[in-house]
Amino acid sequence: MRDFSQDHRWLSVNTATIRKSQGVDLPLAQIIDACARRGIRAISPWRDQVAAAGLNNVAKLVRDHQMELSGYCRGGMFTSEGAREDNRRAVDEAAQLGAACLVLVVGALPGALQGRAAHKDIALARNQVRDGIGELLDYARTARMPLAIEPLHPMYAADRACINTMEHALDVCDELDPYRSGSIGVAVDVYHVWWDPKLEQQVERAGGKRLLAFHVCDWLTPTTDLLNDRGMMGDGVIDIPKIRGWVEAQGFAGYSEVEIFSTGNWWQRGHGEVLDTCIARHKAAV
Amino acid sequence: MRDFSQDHRWLSVNTATIRKSQGVDLPLAQIIDACARRGIRAISPWRDQVAAAGLNNVAKLVRDHQMELSGYCRGGMFTSEGAREDNRRAVDEAAQLGAACLVLVVGALPGALQGRAAHKDIALARNQVRDGIGELLDYARTARMPLAIEPLHPMYAADRACINTMEHALDVCDELDPYRSGSIGVAVDVYHVWWDPKLEQQVERAGGKRLLAFHVCDWLTPTTDLLNDRGMMGDGVIDIPKIRGWVEAQGFAGYSEVEIFSTGNWWQRGHGEVLDTCIARHKAAV
Repeated sequence: MRDFSQDHRWLSVNTATIRKSQGVDLPLAQIIDACARRGIRAISPWRDQVAAAGLNNVAKLVRDHQMELSGYCRGGMFTSEGAREDNRRAVDEAAQLGAACLVLVVGALPGALQGRAAHKDIALARNQVRDGIGELLDYARTARMPLAIEPLHPMYAADRACINTMEHALDVCDELDPYRSGSIGVAVDVYHVWWDPKLEQQVERAGGKRLLAFHVCDWLTPTTDLLNDRGMMGDGVIDIPKIRGWVEAQGFAGYSEVEIFSTGNWWQRGHGEVLDTCIARHKAAV
Repeated sequence: MRDFSQDHRWLSVNTATIRKSQGVDLPLAQIIDACARRGIRAISPWRDQVAAAGLNNVAKLVRDHQMELSGYCRGGMFTSEGAREDNRRAVDEAAQLGAACLVLVVGALPGALQGRAAHKDIALARNQVRDGIGELLDYARTARMPLAIEPLHPMYAADRACINTMEHALDVCDELDPYRSGSIGVAVDVYHVWWDPKLEQQVERAGGKRLLAFHVCDWLTPTTDLLNDRGMMGDGVIDIPKIRGWVEAQGFAGYSEVEIFSTGNWWQRGHGEVLDTCIARHKAAV
């Protein structure tokens, strides 16, 4: 297991973490600049931020700062209309930016995110998701862009992602890519999977070929909002080093990506303070 | 699968559902009376409500109304101090009231419910929980009181219950009671388990001997509170009849127990309206 205590060379910042700074939207160029000035070597940007800044501009900024992308957020939503074309564009963008993988938040019951689920058949949604990933995988292979299925916490099963465990995600990977080509795998976000009694076993099952990304934050007690009350590493109950140990034992040697949605706390602070805290906690609590 | 559309003979009301009526605490005697007047044949009361009304009084009320208890809420919290003695008292109370089972909310990281987790070792908590259930089981067998492990939704893994899937609950049952004596099993609450891709498989694995209780409510989109925003059956995304079909296919022939915690909606209404709605939805959406 790598020693993170001395420096932050393996820290990546998911740009959602500081997309709001003291309640105001922070442009991606400023986020990149703030990270680069602190010696943060990698980010994972969101598509809407990239679109707002301009894809070519972002690609140049990333190059100029010699920055890596630990992932690109995000493709998926396979049960929504227009997903096929939109996901292909996401693959192309990820490829242009040189991302390590395209993260997939796979979608769930159509309409549920808008509070009007079109049906209640989660098994049907799961089949559609599997088929959608399979179709996208053919396209992503030609672009040499690995797809990382992110199992989301079961509290998002209705409206955001109906793949909610590592076991399920890996079942899909095994079905679509039985020979472990490296073209598809999982993004392990401790927030989503820390509770799973089969986590260690499934990380072992995944192996290095399927472990494409590692995301960190923390689970607060109490958690006051289902979406936007994630904690800074060390402020919650997740034993992050233990999980990182399992992941690295399989050969994962990529970045540890901080992804914090926090309406009430971190998004109210200055982005500099947030990044400095990320660096400190990356050393102390990851 | 039983036809629920014509009457509500298999409806049970968990007393939490109307423990608050228009924001005010409703005494258990009044709850029992309101249920009995509507031909509701079963309830599942909470220990604090029973204590407030007096155990002997409640036992008499239940007898006088020829009411059954689909369960008794609740034992568990095995990682908390004093759990051993308190759980034995819960078994005794359940036995005196003639409950079908004692429902176990097993507990999780000590102190987490108070926002100060004593440690982050969920595997340790799970071992303590298994040992605690095993010890209580010896006592419960002598009292002939079945223990029903209730796997709680993974969003409660830190602070309320570290058994979060049917699979895990059944692993514990198999370890403690390999011969399926009927002394231990699970309470299947659709709110906690509906998302699980292995639910059908694990209900089959459980079989009639291990299926001790069936709880219903609904998952709302959006859900605005992790604890107290449960929906009335039919208002959310859970395909309740499908799950009931799986459970009954294993021989379960008990009550369908409505358990709704709802600070913002149902607890603001009159208890009569809530009970009438439970009856209607039991026929239409369960």
